[in-house]
Amino acid sequence: MENDATIIQGAGQGLGLALATHILKHQDDSVVVATCREPEKSSGLRKLKQKYTSRLITQKLDVSDEKSIALASTKLSLQIEHVSLLVNSSGILHDDSIYPEKRLADVSASNLARSYEINAIGPILVLKYFRSLIQREKKSVIVNMSARVASIEDNSLGGWYSYRSSKASLNQITKTIAIEFARQLPKSICIAFHPGSVNTRLSKPFQKAIPKEKLFAPDYAATKMVAVIDNLTTTDNGSFLAWDGSNIPW
Amino acid sequence: MENDATIIQGAGQGLGLALATHILKHQDDSVVVATCREPEKSSGLRKLKQKYTSRLITQKLDVSDEKSIALASTKLSLQIEHVSLLVNSSGILHDDSIYPEKRLADVSASNLARSYEINAIGPILVLKYFRSLIQREKKSVIVNMSARVASIEDNSLGGWYSYRSSKASLNQITKTIAIEFARQLPKSICIAFHPGSVNTRLSKPFQKAIPKEKLFAPDYAATKMVAVIDNLTTTDNGSFLAWDGSNIPW
Repeated sequence: MENDATIIQGAGQGLGLALATHILKHQDDSVVVATCREPEKSSGLRKLKQKYTSRLITQKLDVSDEKSIALASTKLSLQIEHVSLLVNSSGILHDDSIYPEKRLADVSASNLARSYEINAIGPILVLKYFRSLIQREKKSVIVNMSARVASIEDNSLGGWYSYRSSKASLNQITKTIAIEFARQLPKSICIAFHPGSVNTRLSKPFQKAIPKEKLFAPDYAATKMVAVIDNLTTTDNGSFLAWDGSNIPW
Repeated sequence: MENDATIIQGAGQGLGLALATHILKHQDDSVVVATCREPEKSSGLRKLKQKYTSRLITQKLDVSDEKSIALASTKLSLQIEHVSLLVNSSGILHDDSIYPEKRLADVSASNLARSYEINAIGPILVLKYFRSLIQREKKSVIVNMSARVASIEDNSLGGWYSYRSSKASLNQITKTIAIEFARQLPKSICIAFHPGSVNTRLSKPFQKAIPKEKLFAPDYAATKMVAVIDNLTTTDNGSFLAWDGSNIPW
């Protein structure tokens, strides 16, 4: 049984994997739980497991399958006592069937529903089931991976209806959970986070529009993110923060 | 063929019905299209139709059925030339199977998905298909019925995960559409609107917590809403307004 652990949900690739790697590399005593749909198919996780055999726990978890989330929570409850950091990193912007909408005419019920399922419903279900892994007496940080384009206030370009609206929904979920947890878990801090534009599969089709110096390597983004997380206090509970620690309006 | 018309989507009962009634009563030359799932089952609409035979058009429309929205748009395009006011009034907070969550433990994937379907996906699909009924040269006001509890900034009580997050999503949709329409339809104004707490089926189970003077009769809420709509200019495009005309933070 491990004492404290970090859980990265959506660690099979991209920023989630970079974050797991960064923490294992730089925090000697840490135990990291890396979850994703098919851990055995992630070459990145396989490599990490070879290097950090005893400190890395991989766990199958599919955010679109409530039973898989419940099962993962049950299994992890036998291995860890407390989650000191939980990052909901999975998210969808595009895949074989979804592409962000340039205009209203591109919007479809199925793209919207799928985006809500992965970007909003999945993360809240993870927190519902993983709630039992957080101890009242200990500090716990919960980070929901959001994006600046989720900001309604900051929206000046339009487009990307499914992504923007599902991540705005996640932001509201984050704030609502922060309020509930402040009552039950006074040492918990729950935030929505904008990691910057990171060079991953998610941003790949849109990188032309990003100035080179603003496109972060995953490891750099992970470093920045950990720095923000390390500086959090309970006054940050329920806020929307960017990679440089600045506040983003809702 | 009618020239300009008001379309109230979700006019079978509650505030939508009160709004249709108010406009027919106070705007002599107006044509109102009232849509809902089953117009023939709405006693309120039947009564209105008897009184305003030639000025009221009822149209079947189910926001959870994309084909029904497309069909309604096609039928209405044969009857009206321009939508001067379009109100997305339908919404769900509770029904036989859904009740607003007091805490995270009450959250379920099905309640969330259903709330997104009715409160966010439905209204955006209505705008997708009804877009063709708005003429570029004429003023058009689009009102998406939101609620103060949709505000992330203003959220201090927590709870109501599905309703809060689906309406926050609708707010982001509203802002995104406002940006797109500002380019295509320079005389259009699209807002998210908080009508106050209105004495309807939606608020019924929660009215105990509302001070008597803050619980509006549907007709009073409709009067206030029309006053706000009448005062809108294009500078209000993309904003979130309350029944008294004040701005609500996102």
